[in-house]
Order: sequence, then C-alpha cells, then structure tokens
Amino acid sequence: MTTLEAISEQHCFGGVQGFYKHASRVCAGEMKFAVYKPPQASLGPVPVLYYLSGLTCTEETATIKAGAQRVASELGLMLVMPDTSPRNTGIPDEAADWEFGTAAGFYLDATQSPWSTFFNMYSYVTVELPALIAANFPADTQRQGIFGHSMGGHGALTIALKNPRKYRSVSAFAPIVAPTQVHWGQKAFPRYLGENRESWKDYDACELVRCGRLPGMILIDQGDADKFLADELRPHLFEAACLEAGHALTLRMRQGYDHSYYFIGTFIEDHLRHHAALPHGR
Amino acid sequence: MTTLEAISEQHCFGGVQGFYKHASRVCAGEMKFAVYKPPQASLGPVPVLYYLSGLTCTEETATIKAGAQRVASELGLMLVMPDTSPRNTGIPDEAADWEFGTAAGFYLDATQSPWSTFFNMYSYVTVELPALIAANFPADTQRQGIFGHSMGGHGALTIALKNPRKYRSVSAFAPIVAPTQVHWGQKAFPRYLGENRESWKDYDACELVRCGRLPGMILIDQGDADKFLADELRPHLFEAACLEAGHALTLRMRQGYDHSYYFIGTFIEDHLRHHAALPHGR
Repeated sequence: MTTLEAISEQHCFGGVQGFYKHASRVCAGEMKFAVYKPPQASLGPVPVLYYLSGLTCTEETATIKAGAQRVASELGLMLVMPDTSPRNTGIPDEAADWEFGTAAGFYLDATQSPWSTFFNMYSYVTVELPALIAANFPADTQRQGIFGHSMGGHGALTIALKNPRKYRSVSAFAPIVAPTQVHWGQKAFPRYLGENRESWKDYDACELVRCGRLPGMILIDQGDADKFLADELRPHLFEAACLEAGHALTLRMRQGYDHSYYFIGTFIEDHLRHHAALPHGR
Repeated sequence: MTTLEAISEQHCFGGVQGFYKHASRVCAGEMKFAVYKPPQASLGPVPVLYYLSGLTCTEETATIKAGAQRVASELGLMLVMPDTSPRNTGIPDEAADWEFGTAAGFYLDATQSPWSTFFNMYSYVTVELPALIAANFPADTQRQGIFGHSMGGHGALTIALKNPRKYRSVSAFAPIVAPTQVHWGQKAFPRYLGENRESWKDYDACELVRCGRLPGMILIDQGDADKFLADELRPHLFEAACLEAGHALTLRMRQGYDHSYYFIGTFIEDHLRHHAALPHGR
C-alpha cells in the first residue's frame, strides 16, 4: 500500500482543496497531485473527474487558475489534477527544454532509455493514480471522466479513447489532437518512443478515434486567437477523423480567445456540466 | 497626459483582461495595474470596482487566482487591480522584508525619507490611478467601489472611510483593521510615517470609522482558520468600533477557511454582488 502524504488541505467552496505527494512505483520517484473534494463527499462516494495540464504546468496550475472548484462543489464532482511529468529523476538536462522532459510527459509510457525508467505518465494516470484515489478518497470509481488542456487535452483524448470503460466522458481545451503530424509530437515521440512511427500512433487521438468508441460525445473548446492553433493543435484534423469514424464531436471555435487560463476559466463550467450530464454523472 | 502601455490583453468571459504599465508621477517610477473590462463596456461606461491586494502580491495575483471576472462579466463591473507598492526604486534593501517596502506599501503616503519619494500608494490609488482609468477606459467614475484582501482590505476600508463621496461601496476579505494596534502596522508605520503615533491614526480603519460615514453597509468576510486572525487582523476590534460609531457592518466568520485565495475565491461572488447592489451599481 502506497503511503500518501498531505502537503496541504484548505477549505474551498464548502469542500477541501488538497495537495498530496507519494512515492510512485511507475514513475520511480516522488509524484504530486491535487484533489478537490466537494462537500457532497462527506456523505458518500462522488464521481471523479481527472484534469490533465499542459506543457510547463504542475498539479497546482489549474487548481489555482481554472476556477473549477466552484462548479465541482455545486455538481458534487471530485477533481483530480496530477503533475505533468516526473521531476528530479537525475536524467541530465531533464528540465532544459520546455517541450520535452520535465513538465512535458505527454501522458505516454516511454520505451526508450533513460526515459522509460521514469516517464510513464500513461500508466500513472490510468492505473496508479486511480488506485491511490480509490484507496484514499470517497471516490465512486465507476463514474470517472477525464479532460485536459493542450498536451493534457491530448492526454485526456488518447486515454479516454483507449479506455472507454474506465472513462465515461471526455473533453478538452485546445488539445494536441495529431501529435504524429506536428512539431511537438515529432520532437518528443522519437525520444520517448523510438523512431518507429507505428508506435507513435498509440498516442495520437486522430489515429485512436478510428478504433476507439466512447459512450458519449467528445467536447472540445478551441480559441481562434490561440498562437498554437495552426501549427501544433489543428483541431480540424480531429474533426475530420471523428467524421470519418462516425464519432460524435462538438468542436467549438471561440472567437478572440487564446491558449491561456483566461480562456479555460471562461469555459470550464460548460465542461464540468458536460461531464456531470453524461452517464457517469449524478 | 500620462501614456499608458498595454502589456497584454486577453479575452476572458466575453470581456478583456488587460495588464498595463505607465510612468507614475506620485510613485516616481513605473507602475503596473490590471483592468478587467466586462462585455458591457463596449456599449458605454460601466461602474468601476477597485481591488487592493495584500502583502507579497502584485497586480496579477487576484487577476489569476480570485475568479472575479466571471461575476464582473455578468454584472457589468470593471475591475481595476493595482500593484501593492512601487518597485525597483533603488532604495537599499527595499525588497528584503515581506512586511515592509516592496509589495508592502500599506496604501499610505509616506512622510519619511527615502520612502516618501516613492511610497505614495494612497495618492496613487485615490487620485492618479482613477484619473488614468477615466482617461483610458469606459468607466463611469460616478459609480466606484473598492475592496481588498488583508493589507488590501486595510487599504479599501481606510480609503473608503476617508473618501465616502468617491467610493460608494466597500468590502474586505480578512482585512487589517487596526494597524496601530498590531505588529504589521507597528513595524511599517514608524518607517513610513515617523514615530508620532497620532499620524498613524489617519491610516487605521478603527480610528477612521469614528469620523467617516459611508452611504452603505460595510461587508467583511473572515476565515476562522486564518493564521493571522488573532495577532494581525482582529476583526472584532472593527466590529466594536462600528458599533460604537453606529456604522452598519456585516462581519461574517467563515468556519474552516484560511487566509488564501481559496477563501477569497469562495466568497468573491458575494462581494461583487454587494458592490453591484449598492447605489453605485446598475
């Protein structure tokens, strides 16, 4: 049994915003995550909504900036926000590049040394962390959803598409939808996964949607003033892939909005209501 | 005419969150502030609500952490959030102490050298900044309110009590209400204002409420798990002063809440509605 250590717990919208750390088996080191426990959790298990952050972020970023606790408190959703990668692994220059290594785990299981020893965020988010949540928090693990931003939107989409029984709802803000076709993925994937491009497809939402099937509609919000829109995000590739696969997608282009948490904060209420309204919700 | 430079402007809840800098006359150097312009501002002047932050904060702190833009957007309020002091003045060790100097301007006009050259946050917030706002933003300057947190709560209360015609509503989160009686004030006031304790009373809400008169009720929220409650904040001193002066006060003790922005975020909607409902509101 992994021991969990509370770093802090603070009252927030009638519930508790906590930060925790633990020795991670799959990431071979200390990991941190945030949990918002809504007031309803004092009466019994509540649905769980995982939020995955983007490049450069930590478990604290959305906790501080997104303003999600207010709506989670109203809807009785537990929010779980992990860090974006292992840290302090000892790999040389692990934090030297904002697009790779520290805070750029891309929610995959690395196969290439030395990254494969530590950078296993896919297994961390889908297996180790949910087990920790189930063991330590009043979570209804039959009712899980997942969402995220940018690299975390990529994480949410790929993880949900690969685990339709684990996550019954998914949404994303400005996600990377086709990493195998854009700079961010083409830079990170060879170093994490090797040069065989076939192996990359296992972490590409546009590829996965051809085979995966989620119970509900996928919701994506995307600002049209996002500086990463044309080169890195390209949501219309995912729109085309969903159309071809016959998968329900709502892609909303938001006029004038950029890639920041001012954009996320504006629309996060919609996302929480999307997750609460789907089968896993109450 | 002072020139204003936009540092950034980002869409947020249908309006614009901007950061600006300018050469300040009263602070003898560059000052920064944030403005949230609600969508209603595109149709005409809107009421203005000033928010003053606490020790260690900048113009960015509440902008990022408080989640006020959502409600300001709904109510059509412009939010103005200045920095907490001048910076980079060249005074030796100006940033060495979190309770004095940089980010600890206490919203007063210093009379003691070298601070008096730069540390004039009272005049900055009450005169120079409102003039800048009036000249550069669609502000209805007849409808102004003011609120703040901790040192900024002290600023809001003292400024409103001294200028009842300028600010028609006031509220505070965990304010310093009696600086002349607590460590924070007794440490900062002699260095800013000199040893004559009579001069300190001009920046003490408990003293000012004996003479000042605001048009509306004063609203204060205070967490009972706030680590500064017993030694630095002591809201019951202000409650007693208001009772003695016959001034309407609503002081709400919030069970389990601390001094953080998780506390502020939880209750800031109430505060914006308080300001919007008073005579300056729409």
